[in-house]
Amino acid sequence: MGLDVTTRRDILMRFGAVAGTAGAYAAMHALGLSGDEAWAGTPDLQPGSGKGVRVVILGAGVAGMSAAYELRKAGYDCLILEARTRSGGRNFTVRKGTVIDYGDGTVQTCAFDEGHYFNAGPARIPSHHQATLGYCREFGIAMETEVNWSGTARIQTDRLNGGKAFEMRQAIFDFRGHMAELLAKVAQKGALDDKFSATDRDQLIAGLGQWGGLGETLTYDGCEGAGFEIEPAAGKVRGQHRKPLPMSVVGDPFVQGMAGFADLIDMQATMQQPVGGMDRIPAAFEAHLPGVIRFGCEVKRIRKKGKGVEVYYLDKAAGTPQVAVADYCISTLPLPVMNKIDSDLSKPVKAAIARNAVIGDGYKIAFQGPRFWETEAHIYGGLSFTDRETFITWYPSNGFHQPEGVLVAGYNFNGDMGKRSFPDQVAYARDTIERLHPGRSGLLRAPVSVHWGRMPYSEGLAAHITERDPAGYELLIQPDGPIYLAGDYLSYVTAWQQGAFCSAHRVVNMIADRQKSLKA
Amino acid sequence: MGLDVTTRRDILMRFGAVAGTAGAYAAMHALGLSGDEAWAGTPDLQPGSGKGVRVVILGAGVAGMSAAYELRKAGYDCLILEARTRSGGRNFTVRKGTVIDYGDGTVQTCAFDEGHYFNAGPARIPSHHQATLGYCREFGIAMETEVNWSGTARIQTDRLNGGKAFEMRQAIFDFRGHMAELLAKVAQKGALDDKFSATDRDQLIAGLGQWGGLGETLTYDGCEGAGFEIEPAAGKVRGQHRKPLPMSVVGDPFVQGMAGFADLIDMQATMQQPVGGMDRIPAAFEAHLPGVIRFGCEVKRIRKKGKGVEVYYLDKAAGTPQVAVADYCISTLPLPVMNKIDSDLSKPVKAAIARNAVIGDGYKIAFQGPRFWETEAHIYGGLSFTDRETFITWYPSNGFHQPEGVLVAGYNFNGDMGKRSFPDQVAYARDTIERLHPGRSGLLRAPVSVHWGRMPYSEGLAAHITERDPAGYELLIQPDGPIYLAGDYLSYVTAWQQGAFCSAHRVVNMIADRQKSLKA
Repeated sequence: MGLDVTTRRDILMRFGAVAGTAGAYAAMHALGLSGDEAWAGTPDLQPGSGKGVRVVILGAGVAGMSAAYELRKAGYDCLILEARTRSGGRNFTVRKGTVIDYGDGTVQTCAFDEGHYFNAGPARIPSHHQATLGYCREFGIAMETEVNWSGTARIQTDRLNGGKAFEMRQAIFDFRGHMAELLAKVAQKGALDDKFSATDRDQLIAGLGQWGGLGETLTYDGCEGAGFEIEPAAGKVRGQHRKPLPMSVVGDPFVQGMAGFADLIDMQATMQQPVGGMDRIPAAFEAHLPGVIRFGCEVKRIRKKGKGVEVYYLDKAAGTPQVAVADYCISTLPLPVMNKIDSDLSKPVKAAIARNAVIGDGYKIAFQGPRFWETEAHIYGGLSFTDRETFITWYPSNGFHQPEGVLVAGYNFNGDMGKRSFPDQVAYARDTIERLHPGRSGLLRAPVSVHWGRMPYSEGLAAHITERDPAGYELLIQPDGPIYLAGDYLSYVTAWQQGAFCSAHRVVNMIADRQKSLKA
Repeated sequence: MGLDVTTRRDILMRFGAVAGTAGAYAAMHALGLSGDEAWAGTPDLQPGSGKGVRVVILGAGVAGMSAAYELRKAGYDCLILEARTRSGGRNFTVRKGTVIDYGDGTVQTCAFDEGHYFNAGPARIPSHHQATLGYCREFGIAMETEVNWSGTARIQTDRLNGGKAFEMRQAIFDFRGHMAELLAKVAQKGALDDKFSATDRDQLIAGLGQWGGLGETLTYDGCEGAGFEIEPAAGKVRGQHRKPLPMSVVGDPFVQGMAGFADLIDMQATMQQPVGGMDRIPAAFEAHLPGVIRFGCEVKRIRKKGKGVEVYYLDKAAGTPQVAVADYCISTLPLPVMNKIDSDLSKPVKAAIARNAVIGDGYKIAFQGPRFWETEAHIYGGLSFTDRETFITWYPSNGFHQPEGVLVAGYNFNGDMGKRSFPDQVAYARDTIERLHPGRSGLLRAPVSVHWGRMPYSEGLAAHITERDPAGYELLIQPDGPIYLAGDYLSYVTAWQQGAFCSAHRVVNMIADRQKSLKA
């Protein structure tokens, strides 16, 4: 069959956010589950219970802002320190005029036309991520479907099919057909007769025939599900499905890994996105946090002081050092950033932070161009895949049929793309599009890329501490005196906003419980 | 296994529009294909070539209007006679104030709130239906994704699982898991050893393990793809996938038929819908056909006259009989309607029309209500299924997170729903929703239903002549003197707008060719 487990797992693991799918079962059963902490909706704190209690929150990403938003509902006095001049953290929508400044002299300014954008960080919300969707609902953010899987999206590898791209649905339905033929014929020849009654065997064969689209002789010769060679039309035009691709193509582990990506729970339809950009979420939080966020403030030092905490920071615009005094501190800073801050966290906590201070990278590169993917390839949203450094090509789920759109021509985790010069990245991404859509890469313009590992105040994309350092994780999810850490990296939903919200909610509830016990 | 072919095919056949999937392969190969007529885009007639040529078109559905639209580009003088006071035919969007008048004294007036609607006829456009999508693009109709498949949508039958609904993704991934376990264990026990080398067998087993989400011992104990019992969250909450449903539930032929419906080429993602209702398409045509359509005009008699044709009709508002004289007539009237019109079509043509004058029925029943399907069941668009008369429950693909939406609580083909009184239909549909969403059916209000078999000037939904009467089909796709028939029923894309457009384009090209030969 050619299904190599290790390779397929490796491929799936490149979907950083869904790594749990491939690996966590045994551990889950071995370790048991702690369901008592399960996320049970947004915190429901007693109004007024936080009165007079000061909380300083480091980072105006979605974790930090949701913590402030929930605490303020109960009367807590919150201050958010944010080093950037914008909120959202990795929730970052790039549109006309957006500046991407790596802080090393490399500056890009997005040159898309007005109204075009791409989401450089989170770009889709699964239907079960109800912490995230709950805020969208609460804030009245207009939503639309994010098309994650399209049957007409493509898979391409230079290794197979003469390098010619083929459609996602060919990979799925031709593989299914070949598998069904194989198993039906094996069954028909009596290979399963000691396991099945004759009736069961015949039902199995019939079922495989239906499932795989087999002909009368249990032979697979293609099926409509894999797409038409000639579209059915009027008059005498019945239509003709394509000839199947051979098993050597569709059974390839890379191909099957990609063909099945939308089976993963976090990738399944229906997914959602805010109309106009994912940053509608931080914008809504910001609107609900008037005067709470201090932008351009870089945290320099954290000190426990009495029962509380002092956070020393630099107001970069004013050039003046400042101090925030609070009863609690919630740091949502990424560990690479946190690791560089002078603090009096305990030695084991500092060690755990240091051990996890280099995190997974990821990037996206995008172009504006005419929607040839719709007009010529009939791709309306969804993802194409190559086994190149660019990995994922992501088509827009909005603005269908408009003359132009933004194509994410590369989206990958780790890898070497970041080591290339920008012109080299652009050339490489064009080569990818040329493989997926021959003759069309030259239509793309206004390239822009975001490498999270090079972004100051992020320095990476995905931590995966639960897998890399379970002991460190256990330590970091507990407070160190008045200091709490929060963020997607302290959840089992790493690299998703859902994880950030769940972590923030957990810390908010812990602080509320602590306050309650102080008063009791 | 329990996969009964006949049953499953029956189920799939209920998707009238996709009947070709189950049956056409053998015939296709036996008969060969006539690719020379294949739809090659909208007609590209020579400008001015139709000058002075009069065409009377019967019916302002999408076939009739696209015929007029294309002919007029070449200068043909077109008149459309439409019995209704609106255009669109079965492309019919029901919204506040829409009147559904069966002409037998049964009148409904839609009581949805402003802004709510449902598409009573066509309601989704597959990405390969480029005749339809091409017009949407040409007319600049704003499009959005029609969510046809959602992993969280449900399947329910009183026969299984204690009558409790379960999710589409459970049906798919639990079935896959059980199948993989069965086959992997059979392979492991050596049942395939005479067919496979040891290496191939081990690869097959490994592949099945990955595909099915099997554990170390090749046992299926559920997988994340089928959904979580406990959602992964922050702190110690790893999450826990559901226990699998047994094979006796997920292997049921009805369940597997429904679980696989979106594999069908016409049901695959990505599908599209116009923003604001499917009738944005006829509205756009109408705007491009100023003065061409005479509404409220019922065709009574058709006569060939010299080299042309005379169409006698009643202007219902004026109460006066009229006649339209033309060089050609294109009738897009449904055959049940055409069969009642006095004409001098040839005897064999009349006989073929009479044979096919009773066509497939279909209905939808819809309610307005709060979006409990989103807030409680996390269903964002998509279809749920029961094996009741209501069959399909269709969730809105637009207006996500708004307080209310329109739920199509029943959509089925033929069946006995139309024989029930309206209050009984409403009660029955509520019972369906109660099974899918216990405790919530009472929240639904403003019911409205459309039975196409009872709608004057439609008298049905889907003809399927290609399968029922191939000889009649062959006859009806040819002109009878100056009279041409067009419509989805004269295509291999029955009951889709695509079929109507392809058929109209074919007839337009035939007339243009005829004119060319006359001039030559």
